[in-house]
Amino acid sequence: MTRNEVTELVVTQKLAKQLSWAQLAEAIGLSKEWTTAALLGQMTLNAEQAAAIGALLDLPPDAIAQLQVVPYKGSLPSAVPTDPLIYRFYELVNVYGTTFKALIHEEFGDGIMSAIDFSMDLQREADPKGDRVKIVMSGKFLPYKSY
Amino acid sequence: MTRNEVTELVVTQKLAKQLSWAQLAEAIGLSKEWTTAALLGQMTLNAEQAAAIGALLDLPPDAIAQLQVVPYKGSLPSAVPTDPLIYRFYELVNVYGTTFKALIHEEFGDGIMSAIDFSMDLQREADPKGDRVKIVMSGKFLPYKSY
Amino acid sequence: MTRNEVTELVVTQKLAKQLSWAQLAEAIGLSKEWTTAALLGQMTLNAEQAAAIGALLDLPPDAIAQLQVVPYKGSLPSAVPTDPLIYRFYELVNVYGTTFKALIHEEFGDGIMSAIDFSMDLQREADPKGDRVKIVMSGKFLPYKSY
Amino acid sequence: MTRNEVTELVVTQKLAKQLSWAQLAEAIGLSKEWTTAALLGQMTLNAEQAAAIGALLDLPPDAIAQLQVVPYKGSLPSAVPTDPLIYRFYELVNVYGTTFKALIHEEFGDGIMSAIDFSMDLQREADPKGDRVKIVMSGKFLPYKSY
Amino acid sequence: MTRNEVTELVVTQKLAKQLSWAQLAEAIGLSKEWTTAALLGQMTLNAEQAAAIGALLDLPPDAIAQLQVVPYKGSLPSAVPTDPLIYRFYELVNVYGTTFKALIHEEFGDGIMSAIDFSMDLQREADPKGDRVKIVMSGKFLPYKSY
Amino acid sequence: MTRNEVTELVVTQKLAKQLSWAQLAEAIGLSKEWTTAALLGQMTLNAEQAAAIGALLDLPPDAIAQLQVVPYKGSLPSAVPTDPLIYRFYELVNVYGTTFKALIHEEFGDGIMSAIDFSMDLQREADPKGDRVKIVMSGKFLPYKSY
Amino acid sequence: MTRNEVTELVVTQKLAKQLSWAQLAEAIGLSKEWTTAALLGQMTLNAEQAAAIGALLDLPPDAIAQLQVVPYKGSLPSAVPTDPLIYRFYELVNVYGTTFKALIHEEFGDGIMSAIDFSMDLQREADPKGDRVKIVMSGKFLPYKSY
Amino acid sequence: MTRNEVTELVVTQKLAKQLSWAQLAEAIGLSKEWTTAALLGQMTLNAEQAAAIGALLDLPPDAIAQLQVVPYKGSLPSAVPTDPLIYRFYELVNVYGTTFKALIHEEFGDGIMSAIDFSMDLQREADPKGDRVKIVMSGKFLPYKSY
Amino acid sequence: MTRNEVTELVVTQKLAKQLSWAQLAEAIGLSKEWTTAALLGQMTLNAEQAAAIGALLDLPPDAIAQLQVVPYKGSLPSAVPTDPLIYRFYELVNVYGTTFKALIHEEFGDGIMSAIDFSMDLQREADPKGDRVKIVMSGKFLPYKSY
Amino acid sequence: MTRNEVTELVVTQKLAKQLSWAQLAEAIGLSKEWTTAALLGQMTLNAEQAAAIGALLDLPPDAIAQLQVVPYKGSLPSAVPTDPLIYRFYELVNVYGTTFKALIHEEFGDGIMSAIDFSMDLQREADPKGDRVKIVMSGKFLPYKSY
Repeated sequence: MTRNEVTELVVTQKLAKQLSWAQLAEAIGLSKEWTTAALLGQMTLNAEQAAAIGALLDLPPDAIAQLQVVPYKGSLPSAVPTDPLIYRFYELVNVYGTTFKALIHEEFGDGIMSAIDFSMDLQREADPKGDRVKIVMSGKFLPYKSY
Repeated sequence: MTRNEVTELVVTQKLAKQLSWAQLAEAIGLSKEWTTAALLGQMTLNAEQAAAIGALLDLPPDAIAQLQVVPYKGSLPSAVPTDPLIYRFYELVNVYGTTFKALIHEEFGDGIMSAIDFSMDLQREADPKGDRVKIVMSGKFLPYKSY
Repeated sequence: MTRNEVTELVVTQKLAKQLSWAQLAEAIGLSKEWTTAALLGQMTLNAEQAAAIGALLDLPPDAIAQLQVVPYKGSLPSAVPTDPLIYRFYELVNVYGTTFKALIHEEFGDGIMSAIDFSMDLQREADPKGDRVKIVMSGKFLPYKSY
Repeated sequence: MTRNEVTELVVTQKLAKQLSWAQLAEAIGLSKEWTTAALLGQMTLNAEQAAAIGALLDLPPDAIAQLQVVPYKGSLPSAVPTDPLIYRFYELVNVYGTTFKALIHEEFGDGIMSAIDFSMDLQREADPKGDRVKIVMSGKFLPYKSY
Repeated sequence: MTRNEVTELVVTQKLAKQLSWAQLAEAIGLSKEWTTAALLGQMTLNAEQAAAIGALLDLPPDAIAQLQVVPYKGSLPSAVPTDPLIYRFYELVNVYGTTFKALIHEEFGDGIMSAIDFSMDLQREADPKGDRVKIVMSGKFLPYKSY
Repeated sequence: MTRNEVTELVVTQKLAKQLSWAQLAEAIGLSKEWTTAALLGQMTLNAEQAAAIGALLDLPPDAIAQLQVVPYKGSLPSAVPTDPLIYRFYELVNVYGTTFKALIHEEFGDGIMSAIDFSMDLQREADPKGDRVKIVMSGKFLPYKSY
Repeated sequence: MTRNEVTELVVTQKLAKQLSWAQLAEAIGLSKEWTTAALLGQMTLNAEQAAAIGALLDLPPDAIAQLQVVPYKGSLPSAVPTDPLIYRFYELVNVYGTTFKALIHEEFGDGIMSAIDFSMDLQREADPKGDRVKIVMSGKFLPYKSY
Repeated sequence: MTRNEVTELVVTQKLAKQLSWAQLAEAIGLSKEWTTAALLGQMTLNAEQAAAIGALLDLPPDAIAQLQVVPYKGSLPSAVPTDPLIYRFYELVNVYGTTFKALIHEEFGDGIMSAIDFSMDLQREADPKGDRVKIVMSGKFLPYKSY
Repeated sequence: MTRNEVTELVVTQKLAKQLSWAQLAEAIGLSKEWTTAALLGQMTLNAEQAAAIGALLDLPPDAIAQLQVVPYKGSLPSAVPTDPLIYRFYELVNVYGTTFKALIHEEFGDGIMSAIDFSMDLQREADPKGDRVKIVMSGKFLPYKSY
Repeated sequence: MTRNEVTELVVTQKLAKQLSWAQLAEAIGLSKEWTTAALLGQMTLNAEQAAAIGALLDLPPDAIAQLQVVPYKGSLPSAVPTDPLIYRFYELVNVYGTTFKALIHEEFGDGIMSAIDFSMDLQREADPKGDRVKIVMSGKFLPYKSY
């Protein structure tokens, strides 16, 4: 059983059991953002977390074992994503990429925002003109140093 | 004078005049995020804003005119960005893309987060273990409707 | 059962049952354009619609469930489509892309035509020199605003 | 002087003279859609049309000659367009491509909608919830015949 | 049964039955060029033609039905073909592409040679220095017109 | 002076002198197909031919010398051509590629049609339903032999 | 049974039977270079050769039939090969490509070295500093001629 | 002066001086294969060799200095070469790549043929049926060893 | 059973048996770096090594045979790796590539560092500010020589 | 003056002044690895370092200013490098990429080796069988944590 097959099984079982991502996250006491990424094959569960998810979703032992292995990451089937929702994020990188770069360097100097020591929070923001998606990202700044 | 040449001139003049992006933004009374994107060739200034920036950066009339034309957007020279800072954002899309999709659909149903009716704010977040980059994004949810 | 398998099954069953896309659309009271897109894996049905389609096409419960899940969109197997009919639309984007851009900006200013708040209608236009395909597209204009 | 240089010159001179695409189209008595495409290097003017445009935009004889030569078409710098406005049209091809195909074949049989014997009209559609872009496309159906 | 599977089955059965493409074409009274393209998944048979081919090749009803559906066209697995025979045709487009363009425009003005209202004939041309492949292509000229 | 610059100069001078490709071909006593390809940078002239063309087009000695050097061939700026006229030929390769392969192998066995020992002739074919482009290609068959 | 499956079966059976490529070549009285290429899906055996190989490798009749069909050639899964041994040959084309071109044109004029009327021989060349791979290629020169 | 400009200058001067690659090679006492590669920007001359070439071709001191710098190698403008002569070598890698691999591993075990400790010789091979290009390559075998 | 299937089986069995890469390496008396690469389908075991691994992981005879065949190398599914850990190594090549080149040429002259006559060692480096990954690479320098 | 032009100027001036990378590094008291990367446009100098380099290489004030600006990183002109020396590093990532991943995860758990908090040292390693290139890389391990 490959990790991709585990991911497909998780999605199918979640549909059959009518569970939400938020409910799955609650079951292991972590954020819905991290939990969803993990169950979609991008993060690694520990034994206890894998067992809890396995119980909720009726996963076979093989799948529960796989959830504890570090996956080969990258959740998209093409370099430029075709799905409209995901493409909008790619477009933000394309349009605002040099802006991110200019402003982070202005504030911090040469370096990057870590995508590893990173967390995020995604919420509905009520708005009379139409509700909004609010995403707060927080990543550690890692400076390049000369040596 | 093409828009790319205007962008290069803006960057060079900003360097010569020792102005920050934040100072340029203040001069036109807008956020540093939008102003930087505009000056890097991704947004469109009105006549007054263009004149103010032109005065600060000693731009020729041609350049001031070009800043008021809607640009051909996309700030990156390759589909997968090579710059490490910008790549980290691409990586977030790659690793978390399906998570964004799953959670937004769970909360809002089928649709997207707009990258047009969108704003963002980038701040330093003090942290004893190393300061962090905090980015708050807000985009209107646009539902797909059947017709 | 993945969504791609559901799409293949829909196409096969529609062939076996000798149903047209227009008939399937009529069964759920929506346009043939939206319905076809939905059944080809690009839009999301609600429970009632999915049940109606499932009954007409003899789909198993798994497939009916999948039709209610937001799909990973993008219906083409390559970035530049090889099918001659679909390529002609890609060619229109290639040849007229900058024209769309110039005229929409001239009329509306900086912004885009939404591909989400969007509908279309495809009709036969009788013509003595050979009938024509007439497509009417309508998408909301979304302005970029400074912030 | 290459055709690309002519296109750049047209854009610059139009900006300097403060002329709209609609005004340029009116000067040669053709639609704004075709005229814009022609001036952006995708269609071919005849001698009279080229002279009229040349006079309005103060173009040198070389440029006026080039406007009468059939150009190497394709107005975009990359296979997948990066500009958000143009990308939305590419996205429509990606999401609705198989729908176009299914419905045109259902109505007409095997064949294509011509992108050559083709015209289009782009208008503002007033709407209390926000004005819309309305595009009407009309292309001759060309059937594949067996031989 | 997908169309690709039908194509594979046709090729296998033709091999098993020791039939030539010319014989299959004769059976439906059409050219070997069109018939081969159709059986390789690029054209659409009518019911009578599909039945005749199905009888000759012992195809199951599913396959016979599929032969009457307009296929998703494009017969090559990569944008630049790797097979040496097919590559030579791609090379002709690459080397002579601008020549085709120059000479057709010189003779006909702006427009294209149709690849839909098109037929071709492929023959052996006896030659003492080595036989030659002779291909005669005939495609309707379709003019771009201003509107 | 690079070969590309020679090609651009040839095109510009031909325009200024109002010469057709057919006239240029006549001046060196060769077909319009080969001559056009040569002048567009794909074939090699001998000294006498280059001098004749140089005289007609007022080319400098450098350009005349370059016309006698074997060029780096390939006349298209992208692997999949964007120009609609040239794309139609690419489409023919894509749709009919496996048909070319099947029929040539059926007639000749394993091998290729040469794109080097090759000639072609392009003519207008009068037709009441609209004139047609007729292209006759003739390439030597080159067999693979075992060794 | 597709040709790829035949190739996989050949490789597996050769492993199980502990036969070398040279032994297989000897069995049909041809060079090891041509035979290996044929068995890896790049050349076409005649009936007698296919039967001999089939007997040695215990291939089913289907596979023996397929070995006599001209294959869709191209043995590599990516345009730039990833396997280090094969990449070195790609690198030679990359580094020495223009050298091959310059020297062949200097010696022969405009034309190519045939990759069809071609043979090669690969041998171990003993060398005290480490044995060497010696490859002798011989391809007919095919001149471009004007017409 | 960049290395590419040096290469262009070498080609232009060689043309003006009517020198062959073989004559240039003779002037520095090395093979025509290595010398041509070096002068086309793929190898590095020592001071004496660069001076000799510089004298023959009337190169400026800058160019002579550049010839002694290790260049960024790779002589082709695209991953899959478009020039027919060079493509034939790419095709050989594509068609015979897995054969090279199979035979070298059979003879030598796991490892590669070096493209660095490598030499080659290109000769005309007289043949009554048409002269042939003969290329002898010799590269050291480098074994992978376990460690 | 293909090599890819062997690799998948190795990974699954290692998980089931709870063995580490280091333990597998120890079992055949080689480094963990080489052994892991071999078991992930990049190197070739001898009979004894394959038998030892087969016993530890309960592999079928087919898999044990395949481990002794030189594999088609290249362990990544895309040219630019999507997995963040592996991407960092690609980024090092991208950022430091020209630095590797400049410094190795400065020290050794024209040539390369071998990736075949190569070994490496990967260790944890304790560090109070956070442990580090230490990789020591050693590759033979192979000089280009003129000939 | 763009950063690329500064890099070209640095390389040209270094050649003219006959300075080594090691000498330039010594002048600013940093490692040759970091200094070379910085001067090739990948790292950022401070004012003092830039002045020192500027004095040694006779750079204009514009260039000295640019050396203090964070550059857009990525030193290679194509995704897969064509230069043989740099390609060998890409090959290591390709062949050993999954090995790096497996061993780092085995030792440290899920996370990456930082390419930012990173240093390296490149040395000649004397060896009787041919000197070797020794590269020691040290990058901080950054763990993914759940949140």
